Amino acid sequence: MMRVQICCSSEISFLMEAHDGLSAAIAGRAGFKGLWASGLSIASCLGYRDANEASWSQLVGVVERIVDTSQLPVLVDGDGGFGNFNNARMLARKLRQCGAAGVTLEDSCFPKTNSLIGDRHPLADIDEFSGRLRAVKDAVADDLVLVARIESFIAGHAVEEAISRAHAYADAGSDAILIHSRRSAADEILAFTRAWQNKLPVVIVPTKYYRTPVSVYRRAGISTVIWANHSMRAAMAAMRQICNRIVAEENTASIEPNIATLDDVFELLGYDELARAEANYLHPQHHEQ
Amino acid sequence: MMRVQICCSSEISFLMEAHDGLSAAIAGRAGFKGLWASGLSIASCLGYRDANEASWSQLVGVVERIVDTSQLPVLVDGDGGFGNFNNARMLARKLRQCGAAGVTLEDSCFPKTNSLIGDRHPLADIDEFSGRLRAVKDAVADDLVLVARIESFIAGHAVEEAISRAHAYADAGSDAILIHSRRSAADEILAFTRAWQNKLPVVIVPTKYYRTPVSVYRRAGISTVIWANHSMRAAMAAMRQICNRIVAEENTASIEPNIATLDDVFELLGYDELARAEANYLHPQHHEQ
Amino acid sequence: MMRVQICCSSEISFLMEAHDGLSAAIAGRAGFKGLWASGLSIASCLGYRDANEASWSQLVGVVERIVDTSQLPVLVDGDGGFGNFNNARMLARKLRQCGAAGVTLEDSCFPKTNSLIGDRHPLADIDEFSGRLRAVKDAVADDLVLVARIESFIAGHAVEEAISRAHAYADAGSDAILIHSRRSAADEILAFTRAWQNKLPVVIVPTKYYRTPVSVYRRAGISTVIWANHSMRAAMAAMRQICNRIVAEENTASIEPNIATLDDVFELLGYDELARAEANYLHPQHHEQ
Amino acid sequence: MMRVQICCSSEISFLMEAHDGLSAAIAGRAGFKGLWASGLSIASCLGYRDANEASWSQLVGVVERIVDTSQLPVLVDGDGGFGNFNNARMLARKLRQCGAAGVTLEDSCFPKTNSLIGDRHPLADIDEFSGRLRAVKDAVADDLVLVARIESFIAGHAVEEAISRAHAYADAGSDAILIHSRRSAADEILAFTRAWQNKLPVVIVPTKYYRTPVSVYRRAGISTVIWANHSMRAAMAAMRQICNRIVAEENTASIEPNIATLDDVFELLGYDELARAEANYLHPQHHEQ
Repeated sequence: MMRVQICCSSEISFLMEAHDGLSAAIAGRAGFKGLWASGLSIASCLGYRDANEASWSQLVGVVERIVDTSQLPVLVDGDGGFGNFNNARMLARKLRQCGAAGVTLEDSCFPKTNSLIGDRHPLADIDEFSGRLRAVKDAVADDLVLVARIESFIAGHAVEEAISRAHAYADAGSDAILIHSRRSAADEILAFTRAWQNKLPVVIVPTKYYRTPVSVYRRAGISTVIWANHSMRAAMAAMRQICNRIVAEENTASIEPNIATLDDVFELLGYDELARAEANYLHPQHHEQ
Repeated sequence: MMRVQICCSSEISFLMEAHDGLSAAIAGRAGFKGLWASGLSIASCLGYRDANEASWSQLVGVVERIVDTSQLPVLVDGDGGFGNFNNARMLARKLRQCGAAGVTLEDSCFPKTNSLIGDRHPLADIDEFSGRLRAVKDAVADDLVLVARIESFIAGHAVEEAISRAHAYADAGSDAILIHSRRSAADEILAFTRAWQNKLPVVIVPTKYYRTPVSVYRRAGISTVIWANHSMRAAMAAMRQICNRIVAEENTASIEPNIATLDDVFELLGYDELARAEANYLHPQHHEQ
Repeated sequence: MMRVQICCSSEISFLMEAHDGLSAAIAGRAGFKGLWASGLSIASCLGYRDANEASWSQLVGVVERIVDTSQLPVLVDGDGGFGNFNNARMLARKLRQCGAAGVTLEDSCFPKTNSLIGDRHPLADIDEFSGRLRAVKDAVADDLVLVARIESFIAGHAVEEAISRAHAYADAGSDAILIHSRRSAADEILAFTRAWQNKLPVVIVPTKYYRTPVSVYRRAGISTVIWANHSMRAAMAAMRQICNRIVAEENTASIEPNIATLDDVFELLGYDELARAEANYLHPQHHEQ
Repeated sequence: MMRVQICCSSEISFLMEAHDGLSAAIAGRAGFKGLWASGLSIASCLGYRDANEASWSQLVGVVERIVDTSQLPVLVDGDGGFGNFNNARMLARKLRQCGAAGVTLEDSCFPKTNSLIGDRHPLADIDEFSGRLRAVKDAVADDLVLVARIESFIAGHAVEEAISRAHAYADAGSDAILIHSRRSAADEILAFTRAWQNKLPVVIVPTKYYRTPVSVYRRAGISTVIWANHSMRAAMAAMRQICNRIVAEENTASIEPNIATLDDVFELLGYDELARAEANYLHPQHHEQ
């Protein structure tokens, strides 16, 4: 199977977060050409915290549903690889097996803490993390795009540290660099892209610096923008509102206009294909007689 | 562990649909006292169709996340039990093991078709289905509430058939009867409750006859009302809208007010507990020094 | 990935049963060129009975370990496909995804009964089962070898019924025919091969008629012989004996010569590769300094 | 459910290794009163190396099969808890949920290396590991026996280090101490028991020092002896031998006397119960008519 490349085109591209089969199907229908299997969103939907509470095999199980349902290229948030180089390469092999298009590995320690909370975020040693990247690249070669995610801005370091890590991770075989920042403006990101000069494609996650227009990223030559958790957050707000209303109203009549119809569900998930297949494969018992 | 009884109180109660840990936590926060692990919603979120595409063990895996995250009593949509009496009792044992409070079994054949689509819905033979119920009751006794779900209105039969089945299923050991209808008014339901006279508690799913006010159900002596798929449908509508807007705007700034914040996510899922636990259990390395 | 074809060579070939990663590695080391992921053995090792107690997704999980550990072509015992045509094609897609080489589907009903016990084995309707085969073939095309397993001898029918089914299953897209018998001699099998004239390759499972020498199968032009459960049965006998001795002796000294050494385990499962990989990828922290 | 206590009786007791449902059933039939869900054996059967390649959720899945099949108290080899205190307490909760009787946690780092190979075995910091133990005890209280496993002899330290750790782990809430050694004689173990004076019950794993008779352990007041991997090693030797013979003989006739019969399999796994249940629950369709 030819794998569609992600994170590596010259034209800017966008990945939409997905956390299960339904969110993946919805994103595909909206026109997104690729998906981001978000660690935070997947953990949240499972009821776990984004601190490696979900096991790597549970993550793979969810990714499988995303890939199978959407048929889109999926970039998977692999956290730090769930341990050392050996855990990381096993994860990568399983992601390849279930049809993912790529994986990001971040230079954090196990278990991780979500990048957007807390202040203690010990970074992995550059050499140790480069070993993780090399192990993954040797294990899956070009069957899986490998994106090295740099957490050094999150940990409070300056751009030089990020650049230094980016060079090391490129040498270790990464196909692209995800540079992460939790500032409300994109200044760290732009400092990085100026210094980096696109030696490898750059991927960003503007969850916190969302006010920056995409034109800025285009000018900066950024390859891929990830909308990292917005479907989960939209779902959460909507479910909260609907639950509160049903509790208050003891009835669903007034919310019907605000929620998807069952026909929407049936249409999105291909119940018509099932009906056609029944006509074809259960034939002639149910249809000719 | 004492299990909270569901579907069996004299006062009317409401179960809110959940399909994963997040939706379960949200429903609990809104004040619901019990949850409905919906087969349709769970299948949809997994990207499956509601035709027993998901395996019974995948269902159990999702129920486990719902139970663990919410700590609420959960009634599980067990479809027809995923096969014969033996499959049904194995499912029931696993649901008990993962902490569910009850299970519904419907008198359909395997694989099932969702009750709200199509017109061919062969019913299970009464004796065969009663055997499934007896097998489950013998396997889990009073550790799991057993609700027999009658699909005879869906299959086009009159109220007499439903009553006849209800008696048989009561004799087979059911703790409650779920009477299902897909009419847009509650007439079938009320015909049933009039004839049934609450010989066992009655559970209903007003997905289609949602305009009927709850006062009608109270007067009819109905035990439990299930809002069966509204969180999933709310999530679907919201995710669709947000995806479309992000595609159009290439930016998330304008949608930020409409989606949950990450702090909402962190608060709902107990990140504060994790922070306190780190202070307690990782001490003294990270905190005293 | 080019898939190695199984069950379809002109030269007779042998598949050894495997039920987990360890048994798969052992069979590979012994020189077998292909494996049989036995439903009976897998169920038994899981502690289930061979009556579709294990879910299809649990089966896929075991097959994944077999494929990953052995790297050999694996023919999977898919029972009847775990439901109707739709369940069967989903199973086939997942088996393809996890790297299996082929699947057998038998013309039984769900849930199944093991072929070697009991006397009531209702056969599937020919047309309905042909629909299952067509659905699988349309879903996985030539990525997965499809073997139709005929249970009509088991159900007490004559050779004509088997031949009639074989023709129908060939028309439905099968790549090979598995003809099953539980007689203590191979007479049914040979009656079939004489009448069938190798219109498709023939696969056999001589669990009961094990006294027949392989030369007979070669002369009959049989393509593939499956040793269907012998590793599991060998393991069972050995574990039973060792357990009894440890109970009696309260010591393991006398059994040490009869069991594999830990070095055998480490060698078979490639602990040396892990050590080399540590030297390579954890370098330079642990090795240079 | 009342949980049977393990590792805590005054009389010496023995736990037999199990790695799947079948090995668990066999050990129960042989008369063992408790089982050891061995990390090494489970990993090996899955085709993984004993280096935390299997995820914690895969481990739980296997333990569930062991518990369900044997109905015996099962002590689970929890390695170091698969991460920090938070991963450890989650593991413990899931083990409680699936019916395990106890868990051992070892003072190693993640990912672990099997105790019996290699020479670099960094120990966990005493305070950090005590935090893991406290977290587990707070999470599962007395529902799960907590055994602290001390690896300091493996790491080359003297008895004083082991005693010091044992005191700390007792203070942290452990119910018993597993003291591990890979010497070929039990001298380290006996040095420990002399100094420890049974302040908590002592558990041992005489894989390497198997020549020591059990009378020595009785005199030393040891609580529990674990035969830690002998079923897996017996199975491996038997499967290897049978595979080699089948390859050589192209026939299974000569090995039939050496392997379990299918009737043995059916008897052990309760096929008679299934037949009786069919007569009861599928009645009257299949039996009265």
